[in-house]
Amino acid sequence: MQDRCVAINQATTRGQWNLTQAVYGYARHGVRAIGVWREDLHACGVAATRELLKHHDMQVSSLSFGGLFTALDEQTRRDTFDDNRRAIDDARAIGARCLVVIAGGLPPSSKDIAGARRMVEDGLAELLPHAHAAGVMLALEPLHPMLASGRSCIVTLGEANDLCEKLGEGLGVVVDSFHQWWDPTLEQEISRASARILAVQVSDWLPLSSAQERGMIGDGVIDVGNICRCVSEAGYRGPYEVEIISASDWWQRDPDEVVATAMQRIACV
Amino acid sequence: MQDRCVAINQATTRGQWNLTQAVYGYARHGVRAIGVWREDLHACGVAATRELLKHHDMQVSSLSFGGLFTALDEQTRRDTFDDNRRAIDDARAIGARCLVVIAGGLPPSSKDIAGARRMVEDGLAELLPHAHAAGVMLALEPLHPMLASGRSCIVTLGEANDLCEKLGEGLGVVVDSFHQWWDPTLEQEISRASARILAVQVSDWLPLSSAQERGMIGDGVIDVGNICRCVSEAGYRGPYEVEIISASDWWQRDPDEVVATAMQRIACV
Repeated sequence: MQDRCVAINQATTRGQWNLTQAVYGYARHGVRAIGVWREDLHACGVAATRELLKHHDMQVSSLSFGGLFTALDEQTRRDTFDDNRRAIDDARAIGARCLVVIAGGLPPSSKDIAGARRMVEDGLAELLPHAHAAGVMLALEPLHPMLASGRSCIVTLGEANDLCEKLGEGLGVVVDSFHQWWDPTLEQEISRASARILAVQVSDWLPLSSAQERGMIGDGVIDVGNICRCVSEAGYRGPYEVEIISASDWWQRDPDEVVATAMQRIACV
Repeated sequence: MQDRCVAINQATTRGQWNLTQAVYGYARHGVRAIGVWREDLHACGVAATRELLKHHDMQVSSLSFGGLFTALDEQTRRDTFDDNRRAIDDARAIGARCLVVIAGGLPPSSKDIAGARRMVEDGLAELLPHAHAAGVMLALEPLHPMLASGRSCIVTLGEANDLCEKLGEGLGVVVDSFHQWWDPTLEQEISRASARILAVQVSDWLPLSSAQERGMIGDGVIDVGNICRCVSEAGYRGPYEVEIISASDWWQRDPDEVVATAMQRIACV
């Protein structure tokens, strides 16, 4: 991994470092790219963030997130669309490589996952021209099937690839080891995604993993190195973004230790 | 659903009714088939169970379970093979429609899910002649991807269908709403499975579901009726087995209420 660019996603030091502290902190450890969250961006201010990033020569590997297309009522859909337009503006303002898009789960009281998936396709189709006009790439991230009802009805890279082929230019995918490692078609879908891979996020799966407890690279069962190799063989040359969401463990530790550990671990896969 | 045979899996009344009580209790509610677990079968005794089932004219929709093929050391593999032989004997002794087979997760310290999957294929290939000789069908059950590391590296019906096509006669699949509802290829894989569907298990996915907390049919987000229709259209004519694993809710209630509720709910999907 030593020839590849490593990024740290802000979620990795959540609750300890705000965006300013994260940029300073990551830079101190030689990190050259950061995955930013919109709430932190807004707390810091867009103009101030631009200065901060420029001063540290720090790239933005991804901006989290837009999407959430699955609403039954028109008003919610309009509000979401407007917010997604602002998310695109945010991504452009800080020069993010991509805006991460999370599909959305099932609407309240719905049992219609196929219908939810159609809403995602419609929502993406509506948003893409605006993203294209802004020069922002949308990166659809399939989440783990345990999040299918609450967060993302799109759960496989295969589905995301299908949507990219249907909807055309401007839409790509996120490969995330935690969300996708279990998929028997993962390697072939990474290869199929090829130039559509806009971001790669890595963390590990622990025996007691939940959506809110992800493992440090190397502490779990995921062959992170193999996934990174597949992505590289598929032509991906962008940053590998460490994203450790871990309320009970890593978020309790000294963020400098967390970042140093992440950098060591990813160098070894 | 009223023209279809309903079964209750013993797990639904776990901790409250032993096997004898379950057979009596289910029969009282008009249930004509039961999903049996091996530990309960052994506690009751095979001969006594046969008598009990015969007396109540109760079919065995499934016996849980054999499998767990993913071990790195030869001794564990031999022990597992021997136990699987005994599981086949158990299934034959009580006339079970099938022996449910759970693949097994990753071996200790392993990150090689592809290797684990090869072990499952090898283990099934070794076991199938014995199952065939005993006249027992093996029903491979893909579990939810959140169980991929701990319990089953086989997580999609597509993979299970692939294995059936490779390994040939004697091997089929379990369709389980809880484990498989999220899969965008589910309908096509049910159709592909067709006569290979040996058992259908139903429960629901709740917002806070984990492997140990499954919802009563109708309380969650799964369109159970649609899955049952797909299975029926694929040619399945066997029992629909309710399996509510629910330590925090349904296992705390009066089992008569649980069974009555399950019967009402499945009649409505």
